[in-house]
Amino acid sequence: MLSTRVQPRIYSGAAISNISRTVAYLSHAQPGLRVAGIAYQQNQGTPRLFSTTSSAQLRDFFPSKETQFIRTTPPAWPHHGYTEDEMTKVVPSHRPPRTVGDRIAWKTIRFCRWAMDKATGLEPDQQVDKKNPTTAVAAVKPLTEAQWLIRFVFLESIAGVPGMVGGMLRHLRSLRLLRRDNGWIETLLEESYNERMHLLTFMKMCEPGFFMKFMLLGAQGVFFNAIFISYLLAPRFIHRFVGYLEEEAVHTYTRCIKEMDEGCLPKWTDEEFKVPDIAISYWKMPEGKRTMRDLILYIRADEAVHRGVNHTFGNLSQREDPNPFVSVYKDGKPPSAAMKPTGFEREEVI
Amino acid sequence: MLSTRVQPRIYSGAAISNISRTVAYLSHAQPGLRVAGIAYQQNQGTPRLFSTTSSAQLRDFFPSKETQFIRTTPPAWPHHGYTEDEMTKVVPSHRPPRTVGDRIAWKTIRFCRWAMDKATGLEPDQQVDKKNPTTAVAAVKPLTEAQWLIRFVFLESIAGVPGMVGGMLRHLRSLRLLRRDNGWIETLLEESYNERMHLLTFMKMCEPGFFMKFMLLGAQGVFFNAIFISYLLAPRFIHRFVGYLEEEAVHTYTRCIKEMDEGCLPKWTDEEFKVPDIAISYWKMPEGKRTMRDLILYIRADEAVHRGVNHTFGNLSQREDPNPFVSVYKDGKPPSAAMKPTGFEREEVI
Ligand SMILES: [Fe+2]
Ligand SMILES: [Fe+2]
Ligand SMILES: [Fe+2]
Ligand SMILES: [Fe+2]
Repeated sequence: MLSTRVQPRIYSGAAISNISRTVAYLSHAQPGLRVAGIAYQQNQGTPRLFSTTSSAQLRDFFPSKETQFIRTTPPAWPHHGYTEDEMTKVVPSHRPPRTVGDRIAWKTIRFCRWAMDKATGLEPDQQVDKKNPTTAVAAVKPLTEAQWLIRFVFLESIAGVPGMVGGMLRHLRSLRLLRRDNGWIETLLEESYNERMHLLTFMKMCEPGFFMKFMLLGAQGVFFNAIFISYLLAPRFIHRFVGYLEEEAVHTYTRCIKEMDEGCLPKWTDEEFKVPDIAISYWKMPEGKRTMRDLILYIRADEAVHRGVNHTFGNLSQREDPNPFVSVYKDGKPPSAAMKPTGFEREEVI
Repeated sequence: MLSTRVQPRIYSGAAISNISRTVAYLSHAQPGLRVAGIAYQQNQGTPRLFSTTSSAQLRDFFPSKETQFIRTTPPAWPHHGYTEDEMTKVVPSHRPPRTVGDRIAWKTIRFCRWAMDKATGLEPDQQVDKKNPTTAVAAVKPLTEAQWLIRFVFLESIAGVPGMVGGMLRHLRSLRLLRRDNGWIETLLEESYNERMHLLTFMKMCEPGFFMKFMLLGAQGVFFNAIFISYLLAPRFIHRFVGYLEEEAVHTYTRCIKEMDEGCLPKWTDEEFKVPDIAISYWKMPEGKRTMRDLILYIRADEAVHRGVNHTFGNLSQREDPNPFVSVYKDGKPPSAAMKPTGFEREEVI
């Protein structure tokens, strides 16, 4: 189905430090390339085997394309925007599994989180309370900027898949069964588009090496096919699974904001740090509100929307129910997905 | 890949009249169900084996969903709209094949048109000049409303596939190669969304029977997989192929408008004929401009856009070039796809 038939490797101890070493990122505050990350610092003498781009090239990793006639190509689907309130009120949360499907989805995400922690070389005292993995954000030791970026890039590269698959399969179903879709397709496709914008934003700040790119290829090859088949068979399960994935995303970004506020990520809180232009234009970030913290607040709000939307979709009849988030309500108040971490129950919105 | 593994049958003589018989449509001018179409009239005594819906149910074939709380679910991606001028100036046209790939694409479409003509039971004197199949619109004998609807529904059910596949594959490529897409994805997904709206609009006017639905399932099963694999291997070829498919679409709707103007399709030109609400809200059709002719003008303009876009995409570098139609130009004039039937050459827009 995909051109990337690469199988993902089981993460071994050797792979762990390799992945950490493969993310190098640019600190705008201190121009030039600095590689951080615990795993890397432990290997300071070794050559950067898996890095393919030199620091001089980093700023133009994928420049916005300018040609003879074309000045720029802006993102065609504008972001809906948030109020300050909507962004700051987002909290990590958890919907306790109720059905067997819920439990399988939750356990699968637990496994992925475990593998991700291993892969980014998280030390035991960098872990949060294991009993509340998506709500507890306190840990003894903070992550480094490089460790955060590895998590962000992996999370976003994966997160862009299910919305696209769901949107496509519902589109095809509507075409072949000659049935109305009632608004799900647009929301699912926009979700995947939004995740891709997250990824491209982080790509402006870091420079994955060969090994990490290889892992991303393999991860997509496996993940796309798994989601494709599962969505055909059990779309509600996939929406629940994505709901849990987005709980992880909100957790990740909330912990990152906390560690920035505690001064643990000096490169990002440095006054001279500038967020990429692609982010400024996509979220229409106002002047004076363009710090890394502001950016992560926007992204976290997006994840909170995905969390509420997918947990809700997981509660609805896939065949019949309209998409509550784009519907016109009789009492004039469409529900707000970001503010409902566990999703709406069917009886609340349909 | 799809749940619909149904194989399409080779159209036999028997199948031909069956398909014609499977489309029954509602004439709003004469309430109640009237089945028209040459093939059906020849079989007036035979029972309607392949029809599954009674006339009483037709108006609610897929009602817009209203629930306890939800009033309606409008299409979330608004149509861009056209000026009167843009709609009336569309002409059938043909881009002569230049490369071997072009020729294969063109011949494939020729075969599909031949099969479609057979399937809808077109008589020899209903055919246009075979030497100019996509530009000549004059024929000795007009098609009936039922024959038109079969063509429309088949064409639209197929036409919604390539944009979705192309958009999805480019999205996945952007995610896994960590590359910017430069605006193609949105245009491709919107194209497929637009085609689906065409289909749903026609579904409000007709009622395919079991046999036709079965054919649509089979057609999508084969077509989706073929497009998926071809787009992975040769995306430029698929854009050219779609360019030729859209030449057919513009041709079909132009001939239909001509036959309406000549008074050959009385049910659609009847003063009391009303276009479906879904069309009025999607195209924002102004009051007093809601005849079937107006509707077909909108749809034809959409097809002309797809034609220009896909022929242009077929001329571009798939990896590097930005999407000209959503780019900001240095001289301030983005190109208009509808007005360029053969597409823009690369040197004109990049
Ligand atoms: Fe994201
Ligand atoms: Fe997300
Ligand atoms: Fe169409
Ligand atoms: Fe089209």
